Formats: sequence, structure tokens, C-alpha cells
Amino acid sequence: MKCTICKKPAVIKLRHANLKLCPEHLVARVEKVVAETIKKFHMFTPAEKILVAVSGGKDSLALWEILRKLGYRADGAYLDLGIEGYSARSREYSEKFAAARELKLHVVAVEEELGTGIDGLVRVARGKACSLCGTVKRYLLNHVAYEGGYHVLATGHNLDDEAATLLGNVIRWEEGYLARQYPVLPGEGKLVRRAKPLVFLSEREVAAYCVISGIQYIYEECPHAVGARSIALKHVLNKLEDRYPATKLTFLRGFLKVRDRFRPREPVELRDCPICGMPTAAEGPCRFCRLKERVSHGAPA
Amino acid sequence: MKCTICKKPAVIKLRHANLKLCPEHLVARVEKVVAETIKKFHMFTPAEKILVAVSGGKDSLALWEILRKLGYRADGAYLDLGIEGYSARSREYSEKFAAARELKLHVVAVEEELGTGIDGLVRVARGKACSLCGTVKRYLLNHVAYEGGYHVLATGHNLDDEAATLLGNVIRWEEGYLARQYPVLPGEGKLVRRAKPLVFLSEREVAAYCVISGIQYIYEECPHAVGARSIALKHVLNKLEDRYPATKLTFLRGFLKVRDRFRPREPVELRDCPICGMPTAAEGPCRFCRLKERVSHGAPA
Repeated sequence: MKCTICKKPAVIKLRHANLKLCPEHLVARVEKVVAETIKKFHMFTPAEKILVAVSGGKDSLALWEILRKLGYRADGAYLDLGIEGYSARSREYSEKFAAARELKLHVVAVEEELGTGIDGLVRVARGKACSLCGTVKRYLLNHVAYEGGYHVLATGHNLDDEAATLLGNVIRWEEGYLARQYPVLPGEGKLVRRAKPLVFLSEREVAAYCVISGIQYIYEECPHAVGARSIALKHVLNKLEDRYPATKLTFLRGFLKVRDRFRPREPVELRDCPICGMPTAAEGPCRFCRLKERVSHGAPA
Repeated sequence: MKCTICKKPAVIKLRHANLKLCPEHLVARVEKVVAETIKKFHMFTPAEKILVAVSGGKDSLALWEILRKLGYRADGAYLDLGIEGYSARSREYSEKFAAARELKLHVVAVEEELGTGIDGLVRVARGKACSLCGTVKRYLLNHVAYEGGYHVLATGHNLDDEAATLLGNVIRWEEGYLARQYPVLPGEGKLVRRAKPLVFLSEREVAAYCVISGIQYIYEECPHAVGARSIALKHVLNKLEDRYPATKLTFLRGFLKVRDRFRPREPVELRDCPICGMPTAAEGPCRFCRLKERVSHGAPA
């Protein structure tokens, strides 16, 4: 197998892009796709301050590395989720990455902000682990970004993540979620702009990028994700992708073209949470403050 | 396992409907769902003349049986597709069904109308078998319905068919197809109204209905369908349904709620085909007449 571009030995075949690539050209492609995605969707400029949501996994560390190489000003934010047998190790990978490159990493312990980590939250609150954790992460990452004066929060969602989320939203026709699924969401008041520069890169490409670039990352899935719906959705998309290469890319690109049709008929109005002052679409306290309240009561609510 | 309704022994468990049913109540449920679907979508009235597209498979024969039992005036139309080792047997099932019930069955041989059967068409025309066959069937069934003065053409598409088609249309975001995917499509000029009264019944329910009602049908899939995309799509939906019962129903029902968003911005204008005079959205001859032209030349076009 030879590299499509330079004919040297290739290490990866990307059927969806009709490419076979050597290490050098895989790295070049990944960085080019990210640079183009950032420009095409007006995600941010080199003058802006970026906060990368860092989990210690391949996607977020690759994203941080790429932004750095492309000349963007990016710090990191690591949330210690308090997940037994997972958080300690993922934190180590994140801190080592930052230290080796002399990059600034904010570390926030969920336990300090919420009164308990995700393990504890799952025990006392109703709802699925991934959904609860999502609420906590979105809130705290936005909080760190807002307080730190960052222009934008960048996350490492890749093509596989986005396509699976899209499939889940489409199967249930979640109009509100569909309206908000986009590579960049503008900021508003205390809600910091959010961007996903890796959405057009497959999981395999990002993993290969890390291996080639010598980025050490945590391989394990979060223990709470076992049996998660997102994994089942990824699995069926992989089945289709195997038979029909570029299924995921076609699905996501096509959606971005028709997405206008899901624009909300009435814009969602945000108000300030009476407890923490951060923006919320809810009446009364925001979801994070309601979770915190449950945690302080210590029993399933 | 006991019937949810009468506690007699149940023969089928419908997880998506949270029901276990004995033969009698399965039949009752199937007929009730069809009766409700017909009314809810204003498909047709007892005063109208219905033409059922009959293939000899479980769905179309079940549909014909149910319409008859519900008191509708339904004749059948069987297209002899000219598929080796398949058409002769499916025709036999259709004719026996009609004869046993003294029902009127129109039999049309594709070879007489097109100059060749589907086997021959696949050899000379570009395109996939299922897509070519779809064009031929839609054209000829509409033709039979129009010439016979029927108010509506009813087809046996079930929930599994509709959900798979929907998934295929969504994965590629085929806006035109999404706009036209609906349980009933109004007629216009020489285009006869089309209705799919079985869209809320799963394949398993329809098969069970046939077995219980003593309806003999052809089990085999069409040989051209081997490896078809629709089968891959059904397979992944079955995977999701296994884990999340009612996935297909939720997917289809949800779509019907948001479908308005896919209404075409400009209505499609139909004109008369200069060769056959039937309606077409194409410039020049309709797709059927173009296929016929290719067949008459006898070589791939």
C-alpha cells in the first residue's frame, strides 16, 4: 500500500476520502482539514483566546496539539469528574501533555463545584450517567471559559461522535437538538461560543494522528459509558460505513445543508439562574444548580 | 405467555406496543390499526374504488384481506415482473388468493408493456435492479389504476419498509424524497392517489396475521434484492429495535410530525410525457418510456 500523495509506504487507508496515506501526509491532511473547518465555519481567529476542553483522550489532545501547531492561542481545561479508576489516569495524561509543551491547563474538580463527583452524582440523581455528566461538563466548561475571558470553547468531537449524535437526534426527531447541532454555536451573554474543529475527521484518523505525533492518551472508555446509546449508534453507523464508505460524512454534510429547516420557529429565551447567575432556558434554577441541590440532600430526588 | 387482553395463550410478543397477543387478538389488533390508519390519514372511503398492488408476498395479500374484511371495495393488480424462478410462483400465490375469495385480479405482464421483463431490463439498462424495477412498477400500477377508474392505489409497505426507506432518505438527506414520504399522497390529473395502510404495522405482525388467517404467500425475497441497500438499512434498524423497542415506530411517527419542514419550497410541476401521455416531472419522455426505448435498442444505454 502506497501513499496516494508521495508513493512512500502508507500506514492508513481512508476509504471515505479515497486516500492511502504515509505518516507525514496523514498528519498534513488532519491539520489541513482542521484549518479549513475553522475558517469555513468562522470558528475563531488567531487573535482570539481559545479554551480547549481536555479529557485526556485522543480527540481533545489531538485538537490541542493541532491548534498549537496552526498558531492559535489555546489553553486547556481539564475537569476531574471523580470517576473511580478513570479520572486519575485521564488527568495524568492531560497534565503530562500540557507540561511537556509548557501549555496552560486549568484543572477543575467536579467534586468541589458540585459537592460530589460523577460517581456520586449517578447514585443520588435521576437520569442516565452520560446525560447527567453532559450537563455538568457543559456547565463547568462554560463557567471556566467565561470566567477566564476566553472567546471560545473548543471541543474534540469527531465525525463519529457527530454522526452518532445526529442519528440519535434524527431517530427521535429531536427538533430542538437538531436546531442546535452545528460545528460552531455563537456565544451570547455569559454563554461562551462553542466550536468543534474535528467534526470532519473520523475517529481512526484522529487516533492515527496521535500515534504518529507521539501523543499519549487514555485508551479506555469511561466506565459509565458501557452500554450507552451513543455506542450502539456508533456501532450501526460503522456497519453502514463498512458497506457504504463515506456514509458518516455524507450524513453530516447533508444535514448541514438542510439544517436551516430545523431552525426554531421561536428563539429560545435565556434568563439568569437565580442561584448562580449563569444563563439557563429553564424557569427557576439552572440544571446544574438543581443537581447540586439534589447532591446536598444526598438522596435520589 | 398470556394474551394481554384475554389471558389465553399468546403466540406473539410485541415489545414495541407492549403487548402479548393470542391469535384472535393479534388479528383484531392488525385490523384495528389498519382501520385507524385509513381514517386518520383520509386514505379512502368505503364508496371509493381501491386497487391493491399485489405481489404475492405477505404484506400485499394481508392488505387485500384486511380491506375486504373492513368492507372496502378492493380489486388487485399483479405485475408479472418476468423474474426467473420468482415471478411464476408469486403469480400463483396471487391468483390462488383472488380465486379462493372470488376477487378481481388484473394481471399485467411487464414484458408486454416494456418489451422485456425485469431480468432483461437489468441486462440492458444502467442502474440498480431495485431502482429500475421501482420505476416500472410505479408507472404500470398507476397506469392500471388510472385506466381502470380506481380512486386510489393501495400498497403493502409496512413499518419496517417505511422506517428503512426513511433512514436511507435521512442518511443522504434526500429532501425531495423526504417531502414525498407520507402514508398517503394525493392524486393529481392522471396520477392516482396512493396509500400505504400498513405503515404502522411491523413485518412480524403482518407475517403473523397471514399465518393465523391461513393466507399462503411467497416467502422468498426477490433474487435481485440480494445485497440491496434497503436490506442493510433494515438490518441496522433491527439492531436498534432489539435494544430499544419501538425505535422504528418512534422514528416514523416523529418524522410525520416534522415532515412539514421538508415540504418543497417550489412545487414540482408535472407535464405530459410526449410519448405515452402520462404525467412526468422530467423534460421530454417519462422514465418508463426512456427505459422502453433502451430496451428496444437492446444494448446498455
